[in-house]
Amino acid sequence: MHIEAPDVGAYIDALGRRARAASRRMASASTEARNAALRATAAAIRAGADTLQAANERDLEAARAAGHDAAFVDRLALTDKVIESMAAGLEQIAELPDPIGEISDLRYRPSGIQVGLMRVPLGVVGIIYESRPNVTVDAAGLCIKSGNATILRGGSEAFHSNQALAALVHEGLDAAGLPADAVQVVETTDREAVGALLRSPQWVDVIVPRGGKSLTSRIATESRVPVIKHLDGVCHVYVDDGADPDMAVTIADNAKTQRYSPCNTMETLLVAASIAPELLPRIGKVFAAKGVEMRGDERSCELLGAAGLPATAATEEDWSTEYLAPIISIRVVAGIDEAIDHIGRYGSAHTDAIVTRDHQRAMRFLREVDSSSVMINASTRFADGFEYGLGAEIGISTDKLHARGPVGLEGLTSRKYVVFGSGQIRS
Amino acid sequence: MHIEAPDVGAYIDALGRRARAASRRMASASTEARNAALRATAAAIRAGADTLQAANERDLEAARAAGHDAAFVDRLALTDKVIESMAAGLEQIAELPDPIGEISDLRYRPSGIQVGLMRVPLGVVGIIYESRPNVTVDAAGLCIKSGNATILRGGSEAFHSNQALAALVHEGLDAAGLPADAVQVVETTDREAVGALLRSPQWVDVIVPRGGKSLTSRIATESRVPVIKHLDGVCHVYVDDGADPDMAVTIADNAKTQRYSPCNTMETLLVAASIAPELLPRIGKVFAAKGVEMRGDERSCELLGAAGLPATAATEEDWSTEYLAPIISIRVVAGIDEAIDHIGRYGSAHTDAIVTRDHQRAMRFLREVDSSSVMINASTRFADGFEYGLGAEIGISTDKLHARGPVGLEGLTSRKYVVFGSGQIRS
Repeated sequence: MHIEAPDVGAYIDALGRRARAASRRMASASTEARNAALRATAAAIRAGADTLQAANERDLEAARAAGHDAAFVDRLALTDKVIESMAAGLEQIAELPDPIGEISDLRYRPSGIQVGLMRVPLGVVGIIYESRPNVTVDAAGLCIKSGNATILRGGSEAFHSNQALAALVHEGLDAAGLPADAVQVVETTDREAVGALLRSPQWVDVIVPRGGKSLTSRIATESRVPVIKHLDGVCHVYVDDGADPDMAVTIADNAKTQRYSPCNTMETLLVAASIAPELLPRIGKVFAAKGVEMRGDERSCELLGAAGLPATAATEEDWSTEYLAPIISIRVVAGIDEAIDHIGRYGSAHTDAIVTRDHQRAMRFLREVDSSSVMINASTRFADGFEYGLGAEIGISTDKLHARGPVGLEGLTSRKYVVFGSGQIRS
Repeated sequence: MHIEAPDVGAYIDALGRRARAASRRMASASTEARNAALRATAAAIRAGADTLQAANERDLEAARAAGHDAAFVDRLALTDKVIESMAAGLEQIAELPDPIGEISDLRYRPSGIQVGLMRVPLGVVGIIYESRPNVTVDAAGLCIKSGNATILRGGSEAFHSNQALAALVHEGLDAAGLPADAVQVVETTDREAVGALLRSPQWVDVIVPRGGKSLTSRIATESRVPVIKHLDGVCHVYVDDGADPDMAVTIADNAKTQRYSPCNTMETLLVAASIAPELLPRIGKVFAAKGVEMRGDERSCELLGAAGLPATAATEEDWSTEYLAPIISIRVVAGIDEAIDHIGRYGSAHTDAIVTRDHQRAMRFLREVDSSSVMINASTRFADGFEYGLGAEIGISTDKLHARGPVGLEGLTSRKYVVFGSGQIRS
């Protein structure tokens, strides 16, 4: 649908008003109703696979015609496998414990009142994402489960797919007696719709951008609504003095090469000077064999070169670069102090690990490295909602407020104080 | 100190850079060192009372010369009593449990890693406040205790008092071997300094405005740094069908008249139609005796009028007004649904209470009223960090993200994921 620019503001305003009203109904909906909506949507998606793929074909044709590459088109495609995984994903979300309504920390106070905290939905969650249409269903599922209403703004390339998916989610909500307005997919590709959402704190409680860094940065800068965001993942592994070299090689290899593109992949390897002469030739051999380009400081290049391994000099820029590719920067440091300083200076506060046998230094690293995930003797690749047992993941936050690190259902909730009295008054 | 406008940006930048460096040292400072700094500051404040009062006298003179009223001058004065209460307050904060470093929710995952959450300082907290100089010490104390660095920007009317207090806090930090830069009081009254702080997310992790609504609104609108804020407190008491009338009168009286100016004072009384003929004459008599002006809907005015009590017609605006004065708006509603709707529409999501004997309706109110504090059979005046047992209060948040309701030390912290492994890699 094309909506003329002057109307976009009014359109988003109406959408927001409906979302706010629906959020009240969602907040008081029973666990059973929300789970029923998830299961009914899963069933609707399976039953509606043909319609879905017909809509998706329109997007795929447009993408091919626009000259997008094969990887782009792949990400856009709603194959049988993607469809089944969306449906199964919703059923998994339905199985998770309900985060809403739980009362914790209930304590009697000297005044006689009992004070506790109740977990409640945030209200209206705005999600702005790029081409993958399966995000529409994942995000809708997480918001339904957590009792929120959501406004989804997908990429224009997936427009027809997203609209078709929205219709199926509405079927699911309707089957469970919940308002269709609880999940609204923005029906215009006008970019001004995003701007209008970001200027609507009265309708939207939080914005979650899911996409590349430029989208996220733009949203963070423009938004008048709080944003839960993920920026860079410049992750480090520091191999400490006296670390087990086998463990260090295994973890560094896995952290870098298990997959190159995720945000929790290591980009910089820091090695204590004492262990570098033993370690670098070993890990360098593994990287070289896998075609990982090594960019080192002077000492690393020296040690790698002496072992006949290819390494080029790292520039200052390398230390803060998220390659998302088979490239690694390597630096020899005096010890843990220099490692912690390096991470504080060049890191992105995402995920950093130490490989060590020393308890004191392990605990110092844990405490002093100010990142959303800090690990001892484990691969940075574990920084993930599923690996952490959250059951679901809406994204990874590199912010410090509200949600930090992998964000599951709890990140879509808030806690309010509840007070149980029997007539108490303040004296 | 006067700093020329073009230099304010550079000045705040340097301040921010020092705060960031100090925040790293504070985050790794021991519990003992932070508590020692609090106690040493308390001692320095008691010992430095004369210097403090000399500096304060300069502000008081200027305030009198500027024609400020007596109440304003009173708030500004560092009397012996205020000085002792600042010192005692710091000692109380030192006694509180250390929120930092606590690891919770540690669980083994199928991969063999153990995942938990560690409570850590936020980093750098910016606090922007108005005339009361004791905020300088309270806020510095809470930030020191929670391992944060802070940048304090007080009102220009308290400039000399705040500078003198800063010097004493620096003595305390120094005595404990902690960096003076952990507590920096902005040394210029140029308003552009606030703007520069709000545009410094690289140096400041969160801004806490403490002051009137116009200051807070301006900061929330301008800030590129996340803000923990308090806006309106339009608080309600709803007296349900079948409530105990004695309890209802006692709670409504206390919620309105115990003090008129706090944010958790009731501004609107909602009464179920069934109980209104009995209740309104009783509570109306109490309000009339205390000189509280009553503004009611048609039915309230009718019932109050029939009992010979003065009431005027409330306007639409009354329902969303925070009087902070001996004025109350009163409305008769059909029952709990209309009460919840009214609160959702006109309230400010601060603190709302129900007086009821019905368990189902009590629990519905608790769940469906989307406010930072929701109470059953207790006075709204209990919404307070000390009454809730937080031990300290940096403010009350009407936001939903991060901190909601009374904000204690925990609101100045974040949690990061910690992973304990023994060589695990992701498969």
